Amino acid sequence: MTHARLTPLAQSLPASVPFVGPETQERARGGAFDARLGANENVFGASPNARAAMSEADAWMYGDPESHDLIAALAAHLRTDPAHIMVGEGIDGLLGYLVRLCVGEGDAVVTSDGAYPTFNYHVAGFGGVLHKVPYKGDHEDPMALFTKAAEVDAKLVYLANPDNPMGSWHEGDTIVRALDALPQGCLLVLDEAYIDCAPPGTAPDLPFDDPRLVRMRTFSKAYGLAGARVGYALGHPDLITAFHKVRNHFGMNRAAQAGALAALEDDAHLAHVLYQIDGARRRIAEIAIDNGLAPLPSAANFVAIDCGRDGTFAKAVLDGLIARGIFVRMPFAVPQNRCIRVSCGTPEDLDAFAAALPKALAEAATKA
Amino acid sequence: MTHARLTPLAQSLPASVPFVGPETQERARGGAFDARLGANENVFGASPNARAAMSEADAWMYGDPESHDLIAALAAHLRTDPAHIMVGEGIDGLLGYLVRLCVGEGDAVVTSDGAYPTFNYHVAGFGGVLHKVPYKGDHEDPMALFTKAAEVDAKLVYLANPDNPMGSWHEGDTIVRALDALPQGCLLVLDEAYIDCAPPGTAPDLPFDDPRLVRMRTFSKAYGLAGARVGYALGHPDLITAFHKVRNHFGMNRAAQAGALAALEDDAHLAHVLYQIDGARRRIAEIAIDNGLAPLPSAANFVAIDCGRDGTFAKAVLDGLIARGIFVRMPFAVPQNRCIRVSCGTPEDLDAFAAALPKALAEAATKA
Repeated sequence: MTHARLTPLAQSLPASVPFVGPETQERARGGAFDARLGANENVFGASPNARAAMSEADAWMYGDPESHDLIAALAAHLRTDPAHIMVGEGIDGLLGYLVRLCVGEGDAVVTSDGAYPTFNYHVAGFGGVLHKVPYKGDHEDPMALFTKAAEVDAKLVYLANPDNPMGSWHEGDTIVRALDALPQGCLLVLDEAYIDCAPPGTAPDLPFDDPRLVRMRTFSKAYGLAGARVGYALGHPDLITAFHKVRNHFGMNRAAQAGALAALEDDAHLAHVLYQIDGARRRIAEIAIDNGLAPLPSAANFVAIDCGRDGTFAKAVLDGLIARGIFVRMPFAVPQNRCIRVSCGTPEDLDAFAAALPKALAEAATKA
Repeated sequence: MTHARLTPLAQSLPASVPFVGPETQERARGGAFDARLGANENVFGASPNARAAMSEADAWMYGDPESHDLIAALAAHLRTDPAHIMVGEGIDGLLGYLVRLCVGEGDAVVTSDGAYPTFNYHVAGFGGVLHKVPYKGDHEDPMALFTKAAEVDAKLVYLANPDNPMGSWHEGDTIVRALDALPQGCLLVLDEAYIDCAPPGTAPDLPFDDPRLVRMRTFSKAYGLAGARVGYALGHPDLITAFHKVRNHFGMNRAAQAGALAALEDDAHLAHVLYQIDGARRRIAEIAIDNGLAPLPSAANFVAIDCGRDGTFAKAVLDGLIARGIFVRMPFAVPQNRCIRVSCGTPEDLDAFAAALPKALAEAATKA
């Protein structure tokens, strides 16, 4: 038996994985997927300038622990102060640091039932107590979230806008108005991973150092750098400084810093990718409709498709797609789990999806 | 004021940085260093195969959360079972996870006075209480460490072999014998970051799943991939599994996984680098002797040089080198801080060091 004596909290945690990766599934099924449409990655890829910058980076050197150049570029891009920005190892990494800073054993945290599982994983990992409110018409419900936060004296409340896994979104003004209900002493964690894919006005028109919230953004989605692990938090300088208390100071990959900087500066590539994402969203919606299903409106780089029945049926459809080499995922919670979630893909990816979906549906209908 | 309510522990932590990075120093001095000899990086660089693998990696995809292929290759390389291996974001990242798993507020941890500050940072960050034992003749002292661990009921005891910052080492058999004194319920964290640079027999001849210890190894040193952030832990399967409770499952950079795998398979490049490291160690020692200083024997990719007086004098020498564009570091604790620590460099790097050292020494002599 190992000499490691785990803390009582660590003993209580499952050795679980929030998501099973596509590579794990490929090893289990003994072959690669034909279309990788399950992880909301950006199949259209990063800027060639980003790829070149990563290739040229000196891998033998540690990355700059201050991510100085990337933060300076972000500050210029967003017209804000570098003191409002913290770069970290993806939003996942930053969420972990934030939860660690704020949440001790027994502390209350609020999220939506069916929202991002990795946030919940971090909260559980630090002993926090999750309170969940339901979605409302496939949207997260800011007023319900903030009201619940006041009720349970939450330290954090999580809201993704646009939302994952449903693709729904609120206008920024809706969030601004709802913030009046956010209690003092509760920080809004506004996950804006998909904000680049959303219509203008989706981000709340508030200064980035507004003390009530922290925004989380990433290079993993529109910028096509999921494999690089670069995210950033935008917030009040006191909060940004607090990350230094717990973060892995030398944790940033050097090439990733350079790649993100180059990606940020290639507006033309971003515009081209967003055009392709929009086309893919339309195509996914058409495929759904062609099969008698209802695509949900999306402001993200994926589309949730309502399969029209319950979660068991949607899971059967998903299994049928997986069996046919199409990697997709689905929401975990009722009633959102009547849907499957399909990431934007190339025309070839979506051709493969279009070919597999009718067969998966027919098979699911015989089972469910 | 930010709405973030930090935990009492987080409030108590300083927003400190264990090490100031060379880029920060370069920005402060307004110019690049001529020789980067302070971070124990590998200036000889990674295998060209590793560089090619990283360039070819698909940055738009998340990395495999299981690091399956890299772990399989490590298991084959080390002739052990994949269940004994956990890959993570460098040793720093893995140390953070390990401390989080084992150390709660008030728990005792033992290390040497002047050993790796980032380990101490993690222990403090989770509320652990550090107990330090002195070095003995510029070596960490395994028996003293394990005896202290028993005395204070430590959950973890840290030992680096070879040691950083002194470069000293113990034969593996010395550690094996000392382990008899390690109390049940205390895990030895054996940091083997520099093991590839050390003589045969430096690693203890124990199975990798020995329940008494966890070994930490890295691709940052001999393999030249510090910027990629890839380390691994070797230990008992129960401990390895526990990492899944708290780790950032999708935290590994995809290109870094591919680069580490390619580096691991390029034995010829590793041998060439180790030859260059050995030559650089000899050259650094010669430069020290030429200046009337005493180089310490080293089994790592750096050499500690005894400047012959106290820490104030050594700091003045270090400042003189920094001012002349030579980035080096020095131990923090008495009496090791009578030394400066010089990483292996190219012949040109060491020419620059050799040119700057006499001037830095002369200047320090007038000050101290």
